[in-house]
Amino acid sequence: MSNEMNDFFYQQKLDEIFEEKDIRFAGFIDSEGCLIKGKFKEDIVPFETDAEQQKIFRELAYRVSTRKNFDHSMGQVKYSASRREKLVMMSFPIKDNIL
Amino acid sequence: MSNEMNDFFYQQKLDEIFEEKDIRFAGFIDSEGCLIKGKFKEDIVPFETDAEQQKIFRELAYRVSTRKNFDHSMGQVKYSASRREKLVMMSFPIKDNIL
Repeated sequence: MSNEMNDFFYQQKLDEIFEEKDIRFAGFIDSEGCLIKGKFKEDIVPFETDAEQQKIFRELAYRVSTRKNFDHSMGQVKYSASRREKLVMMSFPIKDNIL
Repeated sequence: MSNEMNDFFYQQKLDEIFEEKDIRFAGFIDSEGCLIKGKFKEDIVPFETDAEQQKIFRELAYRVSTRKNFDHSMGQVKYSASRREKLVMMSFPIKDNIL
């Protein structure tokens, strides 16, 4: 896909996700943990600073990468989730990137 | 708790967990990823070698530890789960250890 097509694909997916009312944040990150495209819902005050969010993305990318070492035996990861007191964080590996 | 009490507590919890028919493995690991007590259900053939299982435990302990860095803002983790093609892996932080 060209970059323009990618951008259209990402934007379309994010629009679909934000139709769910409980979503605070949705975004695509690459395998290094850099945000490709994403945002908080309007009116949401993030719990984290920008620097902390970047750290979360990097750690998430690292987790997704290390989980791949066990794909051969347990099968690929469809999604991962962490239930916290204030929110649920979910990640979906999509090719080389992560939603 | 004394070690004996701990052992009783762990065994009791594991017995409860194995009442669920779909459980393949249940165990407690410490913050370094060492297995304190746990086992596969009888008749289950593990997907992983012993060495790979130890690696999974270590990586899990590392994940639980890094997630704690964000407890102050998003609240403590109640559980985490990864849905794979062949199984679901769940972890529950319990004080310094992990179920």
